[in-house]
Amino acid sequence: MTESADRTLNLRDPASCDPEVSGERGARLARMAQLGVPVPRGVVLPFDLVADMGRHGANTVLEPHLSRALDSLGADTLLAVRSSPLQRDWGGPQAILNIGITDANLPALAARVGQRQALDLYRRLIQSWGAGVAGIDAEDLENILYDRLKLAGVESEEALSVGDLKVLLDDYRAFYLEEVGQPFPQDPATQLKAALEAAAKGWNRPSAKLLRQAKGAPADAGLALIAQRMALGLCSGNSGAGIAHFIEEKTGRPGLNGRYLAQAQGLDAMMGLRTPVLLCRAEREALGISGQSLEESCPLATEALQMAGRLVAHGLGDVFDVQFTIESGVLHVLDAVPARRSARAAVRVVVDLVEQGAITREQALLRIDPRSLNEHLHPQIDPSHRRDPIGRGLAASPGAASGRIVFSPEAAMSLAAQEVETILVRVETSPEDIRGMHAASGLLTVRGGMTSHAAVIARGLGLPCVVGVTDIRLDMKAGTLRCADGRMFHEGDIITVDGSRGEALAGAAEMIQPEISGAFGTLMGWADATRRMRVRANADTPQDARTARAFEVDGIGLCRTEQMFFDEARINVMREMILAETVEERRGALDRLLPMQRGDFVELFEIMAGLQVTIRLLDPPLHEFLPHSRDEMRELAEQMDLPVSHIIHRAEQLQEFNPMLGMRGVRLAVTMPEIYEMQARAIFEAVLEVNSRAEAPVIPEIMIPLVSAAREVELVKARIEAVARDVERETGARLEYRLGVMVETPRAALRAGDLARTASFMSFGTNDLTQMTYGLSRDDAGRFMRDYVNQGVYPEDPFHALDLEGVGELLLIASRRGRKANPDVVLGICGEHAGDPASVRFCELLGFDYVSCSPYRTPIARLAAAQAALLVKAGR
Amino acid sequence: MTESADRTLNLRDPASCDPEVSGERGARLARMAQLGVPVPRGVVLPFDLVADMGRHGANTVLEPHLSRALDSLGADTLLAVRSSPLQRDWGGPQAILNIGITDANLPALAARVGQRQALDLYRRLIQSWGAGVAGIDAEDLENILYDRLKLAGVESEEALSVGDLKVLLDDYRAFYLEEVGQPFPQDPATQLKAALEAAAKGWNRPSAKLLRQAKGAPADAGLALIAQRMALGLCSGNSGAGIAHFIEEKTGRPGLNGRYLAQAQGLDAMMGLRTPVLLCRAEREALGISGQSLEESCPLATEALQMAGRLVAHGLGDVFDVQFTIESGVLHVLDAVPARRSARAAVRVVVDLVEQGAITREQALLRIDPRSLNEHLHPQIDPSHRRDPIGRGLAASPGAASGRIVFSPEAAMSLAAQEVETILVRVETSPEDIRGMHAASGLLTVRGGMTSHAAVIARGLGLPCVVGVTDIRLDMKAGTLRCADGRMFHEGDIITVDGSRGEALAGAAEMIQPEISGAFGTLMGWADATRRMRVRANADTPQDARTARAFEVDGIGLCRTEQMFFDEARINVMREMILAETVEERRGALDRLLPMQRGDFVELFEIMAGLQVTIRLLDPPLHEFLPHSRDEMRELAEQMDLPVSHIIHRAEQLQEFNPMLGMRGVRLAVTMPEIYEMQARAIFEAVLEVNSRAEAPVIPEIMIPLVSAAREVELVKARIEAVARDVERETGARLEYRLGVMVETPRAALRAGDLARTASFMSFGTNDLTQMTYGLSRDDAGRFMRDYVNQGVYPEDPFHALDLEGVGELLLIASRRGRKANPDVVLGICGEHAGDPASVRFCELLGFDYVSCSPYRTPIARLAAAQAALLVKAGR
Repeated sequence: MTESADRTLNLRDPASCDPEVSGERGARLARMAQLGVPVPRGVVLPFDLVADMGRHGANTVLEPHLSRALDSLGADTLLAVRSSPLQRDWGGPQAILNIGITDANLPALAARVGQRQALDLYRRLIQSWGAGVAGIDAEDLENILYDRLKLAGVESEEALSVGDLKVLLDDYRAFYLEEVGQPFPQDPATQLKAALEAAAKGWNRPSAKLLRQAKGAPADAGLALIAQRMALGLCSGNSGAGIAHFIEEKTGRPGLNGRYLAQAQGLDAMMGLRTPVLLCRAEREALGISGQSLEESCPLATEALQMAGRLVAHGLGDVFDVQFTIESGVLHVLDAVPARRSARAAVRVVVDLVEQGAITREQALLRIDPRSLNEHLHPQIDPSHRRDPIGRGLAASPGAASGRIVFSPEAAMSLAAQEVETILVRVETSPEDIRGMHAASGLLTVRGGMTSHAAVIARGLGLPCVVGVTDIRLDMKAGTLRCADGRMFHEGDIITVDGSRGEALAGAAEMIQPEISGAFGTLMGWADATRRMRVRANADTPQDARTARAFEVDGIGLCRTEQMFFDEARINVMREMILAETVEERRGALDRLLPMQRGDFVELFEIMAGLQVTIRLLDPPLHEFLPHSRDEMRELAEQMDLPVSHIIHRAEQLQEFNPMLGMRGVRLAVTMPEIYEMQARAIFEAVLEVNSRAEAPVIPEIMIPLVSAAREVELVKARIEAVARDVERETGARLEYRLGVMVETPRAALRAGDLARTASFMSFGTNDLTQMTYGLSRDDAGRFMRDYVNQGVYPEDPFHALDLEGVGELLLIASRRGRKANPDVVLGICGEHAGDPASVRFCELLGFDYVSCSPYRTPIARLAAAQAALLVKAGR
Repeated sequence: MTESADRTLNLRDPASCDPEVSGERGARLARMAQLGVPVPRGVVLPFDLVADMGRHGANTVLEPHLSRALDSLGADTLLAVRSSPLQRDWGGPQAILNIGITDANLPALAARVGQRQALDLYRRLIQSWGAGVAGIDAEDLENILYDRLKLAGVESEEALSVGDLKVLLDDYRAFYLEEVGQPFPQDPATQLKAALEAAAKGWNRPSAKLLRQAKGAPADAGLALIAQRMALGLCSGNSGAGIAHFIEEKTGRPGLNGRYLAQAQGLDAMMGLRTPVLLCRAEREALGISGQSLEESCPLATEALQMAGRLVAHGLGDVFDVQFTIESGVLHVLDAVPARRSARAAVRVVVDLVEQGAITREQALLRIDPRSLNEHLHPQIDPSHRRDPIGRGLAASPGAASGRIVFSPEAAMSLAAQEVETILVRVETSPEDIRGMHAASGLLTVRGGMTSHAAVIARGLGLPCVVGVTDIRLDMKAGTLRCADGRMFHEGDIITVDGSRGEALAGAAEMIQPEISGAFGTLMGWADATRRMRVRANADTPQDARTARAFEVDGIGLCRTEQMFFDEARINVMREMILAETVEERRGALDRLLPMQRGDFVELFEIMAGLQVTIRLLDPPLHEFLPHSRDEMRELAEQMDLPVSHIIHRAEQLQEFNPMLGMRGVRLAVTMPEIYEMQARAIFEAVLEVNSRAEAPVIPEIMIPLVSAAREVELVKARIEAVARDVERETGARLEYRLGVMVETPRAALRAGDLARTASFMSFGTNDLTQMTYGLSRDDAGRFMRDYVNQGVYPEDPFHALDLEGVGELLLIASRRGRKANPDVVLGICGEHAGDPASVRFCELLGFDYVSCSPYRTPIARLAAAQAALLVKAGR
């Protein structure tokens, strides 16, 4: 092993900047050293060398050249041995500090650093070396220290007298001799080699392997070691150790803060035995703390820290927390880890880094997890708030809100009139509750899944919502909510819903308010300039359309026309249409719905000002529009002058075993063609009205839901074409429109070639497609999805992350066949997955033209689309 | 056009036996002539010649060589021109008979055939030639005849005097002259050419084209013509015409029967102006008719007919109805069409033909539509019964039954005890009704589709059943059934359900009883010897297993274990299991279910005596087992000593929006693993018990339903394996079993490669797979499926005929991927499609190992599998 000397690397050698050689810590220290950050000199023992040493021992592998390598660090210096795996959280043996002290050189050390300090450093060496190398129980040694502190009547070793420190050191040496059977080694080189070998062997222990493999380390993960000159925070003069942060964790705002402890080593400042000081005066004053901050006691040190922080940010392209030591007034940087930051701070940081020229816009865009943008868009519970959960369910609509419990939409509305915030609590919601949902600040339902009425509407409104909280029980009559632990809440009590985590909490919670300008806006602008795919919003009403515009979308990808019928003023006309006995009666009701729907479309088109609008024709089963309770049925019967039995009978007739798979979507058109004809007419008349005065003409996109056979599309197309010709004849105007289909059954995906011959666009409804591909109702799956994901049956909830292996293959098949049959066919996706970054990336890979999701998720989609474009361009 | 003479073919020329040249009739006549059947001589004008004639006229195309061809038929003979398209039902101009009579040769004809006959033949010529060639309205000519009959005071022209006949002929000639402006043509060759040209041109008329295209003819379908020597049934001596059948239409039993009319032509015997005689004495006597049959008046003629029939059957490989003429005591065969026969007769006929050596077994197997076998297996309403429908629904379970209306299972049971046949009428059925369904003779439900509880159970029981009869209304309190036309039926009134046609009829109906031995049994034996795929039955209970054995199946392909829990004695233990609050309580209930289930399996295995049995673990959502009405809930609460509110709450908790896509199948196992563990133990213990005394050891096949991810299978497999090891430890015995999956979600089909690595068999549940691929609930689709098929949106109901383009592609993908990952994986299908011949053929193409369907459909599957094997072998 004669080449061993060559196999160590100096930290200043550029070769040591490679994490595959030096591990994460080693490579970062080397890079900082290269940047001119004051990193103590040291050598790296790369992965392969440490591996050899683990197998063959330090003597065989390192001799006779190690000492030559160490000579470069300076003679008589104290050394630290630190571990450096490829990823920091894979663990590795604890650092051993102060290597090199012996009985013989102790006096010289004392002369250099002070008597107390030298004694304490020696004791600390025996402590960490004894535990890490000689196998002594660290607690035994600590007990000796605590006994001594107790005897001396002081709280920390700093307060011990020199005499006490000497006795303590003797105690340590004696205990070491007793435990190990030999005196503490008195040769610095022996101390060092044994420390290195122990670290190398410790890495191979089965328990260490298991631990790191649990964190994702591969079986053959290696360890690098760093032998580095000690910067002595225990030293005469202005000496100590601390940690410096360069941003505010919560906001990302630049600003030095942190902790520092004089006469301390390593992470002593964080350990809490003694009280550290703050780094900056401003922070100290803001917190009303007396005494001096480091800035006040040693302004040059903080200035040096500021510059070190800036150097690291520039050189490493991120903001780091820096662990430092001051030895006799001189700064040494011992370590740097990426600065902890909230999701919001992360955006601020990358935008600042771009503006400082430290990273590129592309890097900034790729650095942010799109899902974290949610925190910008909705109020969030302050992470420091103590949570008192009273029920768990599905995180149906993100954001949090506190308010008084109400059990009825009416109560929510009346309290809203008094500007009282409310949380609407229901078993489940139905279309009649919508106005109450508008009035409430948050929503909680006992039943339902991610596509329940409550969840869908709440997401559309941006209303924090938790559904499927099955562990609470409601007594609507008594006006009480009883949670699983037996606690009882009454109407008017204050609770909080956390729609981002799917929890209900007792009481009010402190909130962080949303922020969508500033750095967020800048980042969004870069994303828009980078992405290829268009991002549209799902928006059903003029109000939704306004929200969508506020989010700067490229158009509406899904306007669910049924939402327009749930309005109180319209639902009964809708019901008359459904209950009609003859085609004439049905047409009569439809004639009254026509101007209402046309009016909506006019407003929608005007708001969207020429942007693309895709209107989906009526989709849900008709029974969804009928009243559910006997009281409501009686009311409707009176209004329609019909026997209530007639309404009950009709409702029973329309009832379905599996509404998801029933008489809905295009199937309505095959049996009741008048409905789609009315809708087509409403769209065409609205287009002509708007185009007569608008500058940008509207070319509406009409979408047929739930197709599974090409013939369905041909039938509907012929009828819509006939309506268009009628409207043209009546008005003398020329109509332009596009007709497309929603691909949401597996069969539609398989037959996409047929469909694309008739359709000018295909929009993948991945919610339904996932339900049908898995044979899994999203509303019903909530109950066991958690078990399923926890047991690893599904790697993720397929309703959140597109199932690439199953549903994804259908998208792939469909897009290929569709494009082959009709190269001009426009492809998009309009399920919830359109707001899921991995799914958006998959859409980019398939060459989709657009994604469409809820307005509140469009920022996520915009960033995800930008990332996808960058990654696909880079071939990753 | 000098080659025209060569372009006609003599009927005795073997080239004219090709239907692509001579059409169906021409080719058949030619073949009969070849066989030695006395077919009058004639020439064929093939398709291309007739087409030319249609374009260019007879003179251009036929001259100058036609006469030479006709010379071969003999001079001075009368001719008939008949049309012969490729398929008889594509139509073609009417035959023109007696061509060649002129004023000049009439006396010679009279001398040969008799004065009366000659006059009548001339009149008939003018009638048919005038209408078919000269464009006279046939009715005008007929009116002249009827006027003359009236004047003469007789009923038919046979009774007219020679004088009357002469006057009538003059009237015809005069009318012809008046209408056409020229006298009736007096040159036989002119008559013939005009008749041929008129037929050729008539074929090209747009109305004729439309008519035949509606019957499936291609746009360029051609017409051949036959000019054939007349056999004169209007002739002196023993002359006449008739039709002979050689089997009994209803049973297929051999036996000459038919009609004959003396002094008649063509189909006069069928026209009803005069009363024909029967052919055979036996038939005449059986019907108690006086007079003489043809057999009695001319025994040689019937003997000749018998031989002609046998010759035709041998030569043409089928039994034909023969149209014949006797001219002066000599038999002439004019036409033969395949004998009409009932579905049952068809089987008898092909078996007899094989036994006569007329066809091969393979031909026999291919000749029978497997679906027609249903008529052998269930009582059928006699086709001659006058039907009085009171409601229409879905044909949910074939066969027919009459009985008294009962509205409750209890009433059905109590009347069954008195041996009174009942029809159970319900809105829909639930598991508690099963014993009543056993007791009833037929079942009618207002709601439900082809997979509703009623339909599934009825098919399993072989009970005639109509579901989804939405046009009737029940008043259970009043005990009345009101049908759409307002008629009211009461409990105890007799009605009939026709489960083969999906109809309910008023009153009792005459039935044809099933027959599964005799020819049917012989054919099944041949099918079994021919098919490659195994045919198994879906059988849930020991009783079903016995039925399956009676149908000689190869094993059980699907045993739905849930059916065992619906038994009255067990359902409450099942309910306790479901309502259990803790794992211990649940195990307690399962411990009580274990011996019951084990007992079922013991019985099942013993009945199946070593044949393969595939047991599907629990599949339906748990709420299906809970009581539905408040009364039942109260009862259960009392029994379990629980507050009824608890049961209501639990039932509400378990309720699902889309049970088809909910918490069922393998999903139960992931959240409540104890259930499958109990079932596995019951199977293993039963196997050991049976194997300890049986000769053929049972190797059970355990099937996991509704998988969509390989990890589900791995989880369940590990648990079942653990149970197996436990049982082995406890008993010291060795267990052998196979574990497989049901592929019934599109995702399972796509991921079949993953699944096949863990599963030893994959059984395609095409019912659910079709539902999910289309996004279409079978139970809910009943309402609009008829519209969908009628409007051609779906070519067929995909729940009856496997959708090859969508579901079929998934089967193809899955079978390829499955076999690639595991070449030994056994593939089968266990949906209803397993009893659909086209689907069975598709399974053969994909190389499946077995199909499994309801016991009552296994004969269909056996024959279909045999046909599929033959066709695939032949590369068709």
